[in-house]
Parts: sequence; C-alpha cells; structure tokens
Amino acid sequence: MIIEGKHYRTVWFDQDTNVVSMINQIKLPFEFEIVHFSDYRQTAEAIRNMTVRGAGAIGATAGYAMAQAFVETEDWELRQEARDFIENTRPTAVNLFYATAKVFEAGRASVSEAIGMAQMIADEDADGCQRIGEYGNTLIQHKQRILTHCNAGWLAFVDYGSALSPVYAAHNAGKQPFVYVDETRPRGQGARLTAYELFQNEVEHRIIADNAAAFYMAKGDINMVITGADRITANGDVANKIGTMEKAILAKEFGIPFYVAAPFSTIDFAMESGALIPIEERDDEELLYHEGPDEQNTIHKVRMASPGSLGLNPAFDVTPAKYIKAFITDKGILKPDELKQFQ
Amino acid sequence: MIIEGKHYRTVWFDQDTNVVSMINQIKLPFEFEIVHFSDYRQTAEAIRNMTVRGAGAIGATAGYAMAQAFVETEDWELRQEARDFIENTRPTAVNLFYATAKVFEAGRASVSEAIGMAQMIADEDADGCQRIGEYGNTLIQHKQRILTHCNAGWLAFVDYGSALSPVYAAHNAGKQPFVYVDETRPRGQGARLTAYELFQNEVEHRIIADNAAAFYMAKGDINMVITGADRITANGDVANKIGTMEKAILAKEFGIPFYVAAPFSTIDFAMESGALIPIEERDDEELLYHEGPDEQNTIHKVRMASPGSLGLNPAFDVTPAKYIKAFITDKGILKPDELKQFQ
Repeated sequence: MIIEGKHYRTVWFDQDTNVVSMINQIKLPFEFEIVHFSDYRQTAEAIRNMTVRGAGAIGATAGYAMAQAFVETEDWELRQEARDFIENTRPTAVNLFYATAKVFEAGRASVSEAIGMAQMIADEDADGCQRIGEYGNTLIQHKQRILTHCNAGWLAFVDYGSALSPVYAAHNAGKQPFVYVDETRPRGQGARLTAYELFQNEVEHRIIADNAAAFYMAKGDINMVITGADRITANGDVANKIGTMEKAILAKEFGIPFYVAAPFSTIDFAMESGALIPIEERDDEELLYHEGPDEQNTIHKVRMASPGSLGLNPAFDVTPAKYIKAFITDKGILKPDELKQFQ
Repeated sequence: MIIEGKHYRTVWFDQDTNVVSMINQIKLPFEFEIVHFSDYRQTAEAIRNMTVRGAGAIGATAGYAMAQAFVETEDWELRQEARDFIENTRPTAVNLFYATAKVFEAGRASVSEAIGMAQMIADEDADGCQRIGEYGNTLIQHKQRILTHCNAGWLAFVDYGSALSPVYAAHNAGKQPFVYVDETRPRGQGARLTAYELFQNEVEHRIIADNAAAFYMAKGDINMVITGADRITANGDVANKIGTMEKAILAKEFGIPFYVAAPFSTIDFAMESGALIPIEERDDEELLYHEGPDEQNTIHKVRMASPGSLGLNPAFDVTPAKYIKAFITDKGILKPDELKQFQ
C-alpha cells in the first residue's frame, strides 16, 4: 500500500542484516513510524505489545521472528526456547502458530530454508489478499458506494487487506469507488485506521458515526457492504468486530448485498456454527475514555461518559450466515453454503 | 428528578425575586451547577447558548423569560421587543413560540396572570411527562431490560422526561428495571446525559457502544426499546436522533417491541409523513473530535479520527411507523394508526 507516496508492506525482513522492520501501528494514525528489530525477542515483543496487529500481519511477523532465531543460534534447545517465546506472545492467534511451525520445520534443513519459508508465508498472505481484491473488484461498478466496518485493510495483513482489497483494486482500475467508513466504536478502528489507509491511497471516503449507516442505506446511497472476518465457521457464520451484525441486518432490510472478505485460512471448518464462538468481553475503559492528540499533538486521555456509570464492552458479535450474500475469498466468491466444497 | 439526593426540576422560577434558575446543561455530566438569571435577556441567552436544552425545557424557560419581561416593564413596546428577543434565540423550537404567545396573551390581563401562565406551562410539561411514565410503566415487568437511545430524560423536559419517565416510574414501583444506554455517537447524549440521570436516580444501567445493541438483542437480553422523538408526523413516522432507525429495525428483526415515548405536542399533524422532514447535517467536528476532562478535570479537545479525513454528520433519521409498536403519550398508549383519532 501507499503511504506518503511510497509503497510499504506492514512488515518485512532484510536477510542480509537479520532485521525485521514494521510500521508501528500503536502510533497510527497520528504518527507514521517504522521500527526495526535486530533479534527475535524484540520482534516477538512487537507482537505482544501490538506494534503489529491483525491475523495475517501477526503470522508473517512470527515467521520472521522464528527465522531470526535460526540465524541467531544453531543450538536446537535455544531455537525451541525461541519458538515457545514467540508463541507465548499472543496465544490465541492461530496464524502465529502456523507460521512458527512452518518455519521451524523448514529450518531443520537449513537456516536459509527457514528464511525462505518465512518470506513465503508473508508473500502468500499478500498474494491471497491481492486475489481477494481481484475477485471483489468484479462486484464493484463505476462510482459505487461501499460501506465498511472496522479495519480489514492492509494494516491487518502484510499487504492489500481483505475488506479493503476490492476497494483498492476498483480504485486502481479507475472505478472511483466511494467508501462510507463506520467509525467503529469503541476502539474507532474505522475512523483511525481505515480512514488513514484510504486517505493515504487517495480513495474518496467519509467517516460516519456507526449510527448513520441506516440513514444512508434508506437514502439509497450505499450499494454494498464489505467487512472482514475474525473467524468464519463451517456453516458460514462470521465472528467479527462488534457492530458487524447490525450492519448485516440493516443491509438485508434495505436489500443491499452484504459481503465478507477474508482469506480462506479464516474459516474454521472444525467449528460447525457461530453459536459456539466465545465472545471476549473487554474492559469498559475503551468505551468510557478516549485517548487522542490535541492541537499541539499532545496526547490526553479524556472521559467520554458520565462519571460513575459503567459500561459493557463485547468485542465481537456473530453474524448469522443468512445475512451474508457471499464471501470474497482468495479462492473466489462463494455463497455461505458453498464454503464446505472448497475445504 | 433526584440529583445528589435532592429533587430538582431542570428550570424553575421564583416570583418573589423574579429570578429564573436552571441546571447548567453545558457543564453536565462532569459538573453540576445551578445558574440564576435575574432578567429576561439573561434567561433568553441561556436558551441561545444551550445552557438549557430539549423541547419541553426550552418551552418552559421561554415562558419564564416572557414573564420576567412583564415584571421588568409595563411598556408594551418593550414587552414586544422582549418577545422578539426570546423568540429569536432558537427560531426552530416550536415549544418556545407556544410559550411566549401564551404568556404574552395572559399578560394582557395582568403581570400575575403572565407569571401564572408561565408556571402552568412548566407544570403541564412535567405533568404530561409524569403521565407518560404512568402509562409506560404498565408495559414494564419486574426486572425487565430496556434499551434506550440518546437522552429523552428529565433533562430534555421540566421533569421526568419522555423515554426515561416509564423507567423512573417502574423503578419507583420497585420493579428494578435495567437500562442498556446507547452511547449515541457522535454527541454521546446517552453516555453523558442518560447515564448521568440514571446514576443519580440509582437506576441500574450500563453504557454500551451503539454497535453492541444487536449483540444483546440476539442474546435475548433486551425486552424492549424506548426512545424519545423530536417530531412525529401524522402517519406515525418519527424523526429522532441519528441511530434511532437502526435500533428500530434491529428490534423488529429480533421481535422486540420498539416504543416511542413523547408528549402529544410532539406530533405534527400538519405533516403527513416523515419523508417530508428535512434532515439537519451538522459539522463533522462533532464526530472527529472529542472534548472531555482528564483525570485532573482539565478539559481537552482531542482528535478521534485519522488526520485529513472528513466526516458526514446527519443529526437525525426518520424511523418509519411500521417499525414502531406503539407510542407512549400523555394521552395513553397508542398505535401509529391511532394517533389521528386523538388529534
């Protein structure tokens, strides 16, 4: 993706220096900073402290960290210790374990095999997202208006993103898409990250309150909704950022197609339906306070809610498959009941 | 309503001193302050600068300001000048014109008639809201869970409120209602004002992101939705704070009754349907920035969105009558198609 006119991946590896570099996502969107990590512990720490976020980007980073460990030591006990260290940073991130295992196995042959595998994992993530963009682009007509929720862009992956990849493909094809960006309270990933990406890539967009989506749907101003997914179950139910289900229900009510864009690796065929997905309840501080810069760029944490009152803060919801028109995947555009055929 | 254990109306008048007192709504919820105005110009200014907000409260305040002017001068030219001055503070507030006209007419008999009329307008507002509470209370069962959007509480009226009045009545009847308070972005009236009222009145509640309503509906945790209304058209369509329509559609999808609580004066029988209501587009600054206190109670204005990106900020939406189970009014509980019979 493009930032200040230059192409970047979210994370990359220089095998000559054994340095992993990444965009510091903690500082976005208010500051653009590249950080460099010269050993696996530093790189793993960047996963833990969320300098890098998003399933695809975390997987690629974990693979690079594992490769760094192979360069750093030939001692298999230390390499195993490194693997444990990396895997303990975000123990719920499925892509992370996939990447460390693949690189570790490749490393049995040679260090350069380990490095090659780490590179391949990152490339595959970017390529898969690019294919999502190509398939999704076929659904978008000239000057269509797309609503998206949360950030399922390039920042969550190595490049291109999932929900935003079709938008970028349409933009690059000269179709001039317009994006309504749901603010995505409480953490504001839409207003902060999706808007940042679209602004940098010069895609026309406006941020709206999550409350305003139905208003624009009712006016006929929204042609389709595209969101990402955190987890898709075998029956096509989708766990994603809180509020995704609201948009899906509203889209159905107004006869607007609702698409979920995600790499096939997001599908958990071992889980039959979304009813089985546990929902994380997060600290209500995310809802009750906001941290942001003032005009002098000094960061303040300010209260958003009445003193004394508490909040409830479910992080995800589960959108039933019946509200989803189709999945835009790296294997093509598939209806919910078609997913299993491509398992 | 109760604040720090004491009963208050939002605005009141002391005819011995000719002083209008009100709660300074600009400082809520972070500071509770009573302000006093000893002449009609000060009182009118409080309407203009939104020290007082909400249809009912504005109407009562305008009536009191008009009465103050009658005390201040016997000159009919100056009294007319005062009326113009008051009416120019918020030229779109229907209740304001109703109040100044009524008090002005009463004042033709005597100053004390003007004062009496102003007092009656305030009392009628409070009494109407109390009746809304009594009717609405009949819909609420023990320990039921109610979702509300925006602030249609006591702060918008002289006392009790509209959407919250049934909640207070149920609470006072020992039913222990629980309220899910929609944050109500972008201005956060739910998180700031509704939460404040409920906290002060010791009604159990939690603030949720606007995105989380469907999550709790899907879980079966919400028994009913009650919102207020800015304007109701003859066919039962409702203009209200942006996001109201989203909640109404979601409620219908989950089979949850959606009620609109409002005094009968909110109904505009001259307007056939909601399609005719013009929607105010407000400055996107409300969405992109937040102003609130830090831990030391110093107010900061901080950015909430990515630099450079713009927003769209429609203030209201129109909920079609088909999503509304019933209106809770001061004349009883009425279905949308029954409103006209009570005109």
